[in-house]
Amino acid sequence: MGVQKVYLEKLACFFQIRHLLLRQALAECLGTLILVMFGTGAVAQLVLSGGTHGMFLTVNFAFGFAATLGILVCGQISGGHLNPAVTFALCLLGRERWRKFPMFFLFQTIGAFFGAAIIFGMYYDALWDFPGCFNMTGNSPTAGIFATYPGKHLTIVNGFFDQVIGTAALIVCILAIVDPYNNPIPQGLEAFTVGFVVLAIGLSMGFNSGYAVNPARDLGPRVFSAMAGWGVDVFTNGWFLVPTFAPFIGTLIGVMVYQVMVGFHVEGEVRDRKAAQQENERVRLTNVTTNNDHSKESNKELH
Amino acid sequence: MGVQKVYLEKLACFFQIRHLLLRQALAECLGTLILVMFGTGAVAQLVLSGGTHGMFLTVNFAFGFAATLGILVCGQISGGHLNPAVTFALCLLGRERWRKFPMFFLFQTIGAFFGAAIIFGMYYDALWDFPGCFNMTGNSPTAGIFATYPGKHLTIVNGFFDQVIGTAALIVCILAIVDPYNNPIPQGLEAFTVGFVVLAIGLSMGFNSGYAVNPARDLGPRVFSAMAGWGVDVFTNGWFLVPTFAPFIGTLIGVMVYQVMVGFHVEGEVRDRKAAQQENERVRLTNVTTNNDHSKESNKELH
Amino acid sequence: MGVQKVYLEKLACFFQIRHLLLRQALAECLGTLILVMFGTGAVAQLVLSGGTHGMFLTVNFAFGFAATLGILVCGQISGGHLNPAVTFALCLLGRERWRKFPMFFLFQTIGAFFGAAIIFGMYYDALWDFPGCFNMTGNSPTAGIFATYPGKHLTIVNGFFDQVIGTAALIVCILAIVDPYNNPIPQGLEAFTVGFVVLAIGLSMGFNSGYAVNPARDLGPRVFSAMAGWGVDVFTNGWFLVPTFAPFIGTLIGVMVYQVMVGFHVEGEVRDRKAAQQENERVRLTNVTTNNDHSKESNKELH
Amino acid sequence: MGVQKVYLEKLACFFQIRHLLLRQALAECLGTLILVMFGTGAVAQLVLSGGTHGMFLTVNFAFGFAATLGILVCGQISGGHLNPAVTFALCLLGRERWRKFPMFFLFQTIGAFFGAAIIFGMYYDALWDFPGCFNMTGNSPTAGIFATYPGKHLTIVNGFFDQVIGTAALIVCILAIVDPYNNPIPQGLEAFTVGFVVLAIGLSMGFNSGYAVNPARDLGPRVFSAMAGWGVDVFTNGWFLVPTFAPFIGTLIGVMVYQVMVGFHVEGEVRDRKAAQQENERVRLTNVTTNNDHSKESNKELH
Repeated sequence: MGVQKVYLEKLACFFQIRHLLLRQALAECLGTLILVMFGTGAVAQLVLSGGTHGMFLTVNFAFGFAATLGILVCGQISGGHLNPAVTFALCLLGRERWRKFPMFFLFQTIGAFFGAAIIFGMYYDALWDFPGCFNMTGNSPTAGIFATYPGKHLTIVNGFFDQVIGTAALIVCILAIVDPYNNPIPQGLEAFTVGFVVLAIGLSMGFNSGYAVNPARDLGPRVFSAMAGWGVDVFTNGWFLVPTFAPFIGTLIGVMVYQVMVGFHVEGEVRDRKAAQQENERVRLTNVTTNNDHSKESNKELH
Repeated sequence: MGVQKVYLEKLACFFQIRHLLLRQALAECLGTLILVMFGTGAVAQLVLSGGTHGMFLTVNFAFGFAATLGILVCGQISGGHLNPAVTFALCLLGRERWRKFPMFFLFQTIGAFFGAAIIFGMYYDALWDFPGCFNMTGNSPTAGIFATYPGKHLTIVNGFFDQVIGTAALIVCILAIVDPYNNPIPQGLEAFTVGFVVLAIGLSMGFNSGYAVNPARDLGPRVFSAMAGWGVDVFTNGWFLVPTFAPFIGTLIGVMVYQVMVGFHVEGEVRDRKAAQQENERVRLTNVTTNNDHSKESNKELH
Repeated sequence: MGVQKVYLEKLACFFQIRHLLLRQALAECLGTLILVMFGTGAVAQLVLSGGTHGMFLTVNFAFGFAATLGILVCGQISGGHLNPAVTFALCLLGRERWRKFPMFFLFQTIGAFFGAAIIFGMYYDALWDFPGCFNMTGNSPTAGIFATYPGKHLTIVNGFFDQVIGTAALIVCILAIVDPYNNPIPQGLEAFTVGFVVLAIGLSMGFNSGYAVNPARDLGPRVFSAMAGWGVDVFTNGWFLVPTFAPFIGTLIGVMVYQVMVGFHVEGEVRDRKAAQQENERVRLTNVTTNNDHSKESNKELH
Repeated sequence: MGVQKVYLEKLACFFQIRHLLLRQALAECLGTLILVMFGTGAVAQLVLSGGTHGMFLTVNFAFGFAATLGILVCGQISGGHLNPAVTFALCLLGRERWRKFPMFFLFQTIGAFFGAAIIFGMYYDALWDFPGCFNMTGNSPTAGIFATYPGKHLTIVNGFFDQVIGTAALIVCILAIVDPYNNPIPQGLEAFTVGFVVLAIGLSMGFNSGYAVNPARDLGPRVFSAMAGWGVDVFTNGWFLVPTFAPFIGTLIGVMVYQVMVGFHVEGEVRDRKAAQQENERVRLTNVTTNNDHSKESNKELH
């Protein structure tokens, strides 16, 4: 036991990273890896089993719980964003520094890339066994395991609107959950609640194009699937631009809606209360000073 | 960062509303919007995908989690009713002021209206792609995305009873959850528990007419669907009166059942205990007084 | 507002019951009513919709959440047993008085009776619309909405064993959840955890005969269905004796298994620790006394 | 009541085991029994009902909640590992003593054996009723109730990788949940969170061979099924070696990934902070000493 402890200590010292931002980015990377691994794994299970081992509901559950678990793994180190749109929202509100945004975006995308890679390795035999597996023409279902593609009924404008709305809904709910002035749930349950948000979005907004609402979750696996054999076809028609950029516009809208409908008023109330308190304090202090002067004067009079 | 903070501060001051009731009504509006957006979104996903991306269970889950998320967003500002029937129940019990009722009813209905509008926009292409989408004859399934319609087997009397029972069940459970004298769950989990109530009602009472149990949730989307292209047919047969008025009767029954079976006794126990305490206090004070008199007398005697 | 408060106060005083056991029994009655209403409602929805509005999983969820909600409604007043087998287990372990058992059994059965009645009323039209609704020959599916019946493959011996095992599993888990010496979950989450137990039992032990594991839940609705039109056929073959009596034998086994494998050792540890503490206390006191004697002696010597 | 208490006390003293490790092993045995009972029970319900009373999602839910309940039953006594791989991970990190590992492995396997036996007894009639029940040729579905078998598409190498990845994912999440330096969830919710981990693994990694990710859960029921009538065929092809040994390699990888990406840095931060504190303390003490010397000197000067 003693020897093991010493060895573990040495390992810990060897691997320890002291650069805070890098450490946070690494945690985000692992968190997003877990999100994408469980999420795309569920899609793979649904597609490759032909429906015997999954359905759309299981994909929704998997993405929901994957978000919860990803946040649990990295939440205390990096905040558990797992999503550049969430980082963007917090930067917009001045709760995170802007320089975190590109760093997190990069590492979240890398995490998503490796999450997809793990699922590719895990279901390698099943992919080869699937009829027409590496055949990427049109909306091949196996490509849909990794990245999102629009449904046949979807125009690009509606698809853009779909991603904007989905992300706005996500951001409104997340802002309510983490708002320091409107803290509705017990400490430590944020991860579970965000999981429920992701689940609810999947249950109601997943039909159009599969609710990416997360540029990293879509871009990382898409790049991976291009490299793994599906080729540059995964980028055709420019659809990949929609889940990459629309979420940021959705974030803007979500932040505005939440702040105008709820956030500004709660913040304002706190600010008003503080101002009133300070005013009271000032008045009291003035009085005290006056009294002091008074008492000094009366003291003088006494002498 | 400094500039951003200043700008955010200015925005906050510009948008801040100081009128409490209006602020609460706005919060209810956003909460109900979220409830209806996720809820009707799940119905849309089920109907428009023809069952590949949903089933009745996913609708139940979506309404349940939507209720949870709606309450989380607005709960600390307005109480998170999301339902005129809930506001009515709390007014009946004297826990909310009656003037809140029409205000909340209005804003909840407006929120539900816009929630339905968002889903209409989101699934616009899918609606056009659906066979016979804007065709509102009899029970068109696409009209059923927004408002509730009775099943073919349902008479109007049974439908009325269905809504009464459903709302009564909802109100009994919600009263148990928020009863200040019978507080069974940890602070902050009320929203989740109400979500489970809505889920349970959907699982067991959804076959007749789709468990509106909420006048705002039904009326707002119904008005929207009439305006969006389904026309006045959505009001034919007078069914819309059932989910609009039956819930209030259900609320009355639910309040009575809970109070008679549980509420009055718990309250009464607390009242009895307080009364006993006061009595004790009085007796003790009397004794003290007597003692004081006594000691005074003995003091007198000493002199 | 003032008038309303006075009126509410009067109502509260009029209806308040001060007899503790009766109050608890009433609460159990309401709790079991909710359990059976949501549970059998889900079965009704599954059966009457022919599978479009439910599946076996929704019945499992409904019974699970119904148990949670039933316990939440009455838990703080009566403990939230909802099941004579649970009352029996707690009596066996000396945590509840035996005279509670018949009272709770009676009121739980009455609650289950009315829960079934509400669902009968709610789905009255759907029942008439269902092919062969009041036709109770063999295993009519509509009779199965209210009480449990054995599957075609099941012999009475295996059915008895099924109920014994199911109840034993329920009791082991409930004892772990409420064991005062082995308290694994935060206060206030017991109801949710028991709901998960009921859900797990339904997911894995529901195929044989529908996991009654609760004499009240089975007997009350069975009596109701006999009265409502299915006739005495619901009692034929004597199957109704199995879910009425087997759960008590399962309770015995469950209590023994939990106590022998976990309970006695945890209790014993606490007892040992207390004994050790008392021993320490005694030794210390003796020492103090000795010291005192000593110091007295030394005091004497000083004089 | 008095007599009952005395009798219970006597029973408690008779059965109480004072050997700590044995007590913990017994608790692990009961916990794993519950895990396997509910888990394999759900598989049995799915297979034997031919899909009417279950689907793959219900199996996932059952294993998830079974893990939760198993941990709740034994968590406070033994830690609630239920899985030799978890025990192995904690031993690797020096949080449990190595001698616990074989003891827990043995008792977990025994618990899993009896869990399978209970389900075999419970569904005995249904097994005989199932076409070709005790016929173990190739991948008989009834054998798959108890132990895991590879899908038709799966090679042994991919199967090994599948188990390694599944266990690594499990271990990363569990380490995050129980990491003393990265404690993300409220005390007492660990069991529920682990249940969600198991559920997520089942939703996304269950298609290849049924996500054993637990040597005891696979080995115990496999031995039982060999003895119960399926014969030594359950050991053919050597597949049983994969779920028995691959999880330990997955554990190694999971521990490394979590520690390198998150664990070492959090630990290191705590260590750094402690070191800094001690340094500060030392400096302060030196200063104090110096000051004291100084003041002594100044005192001297004063004299």
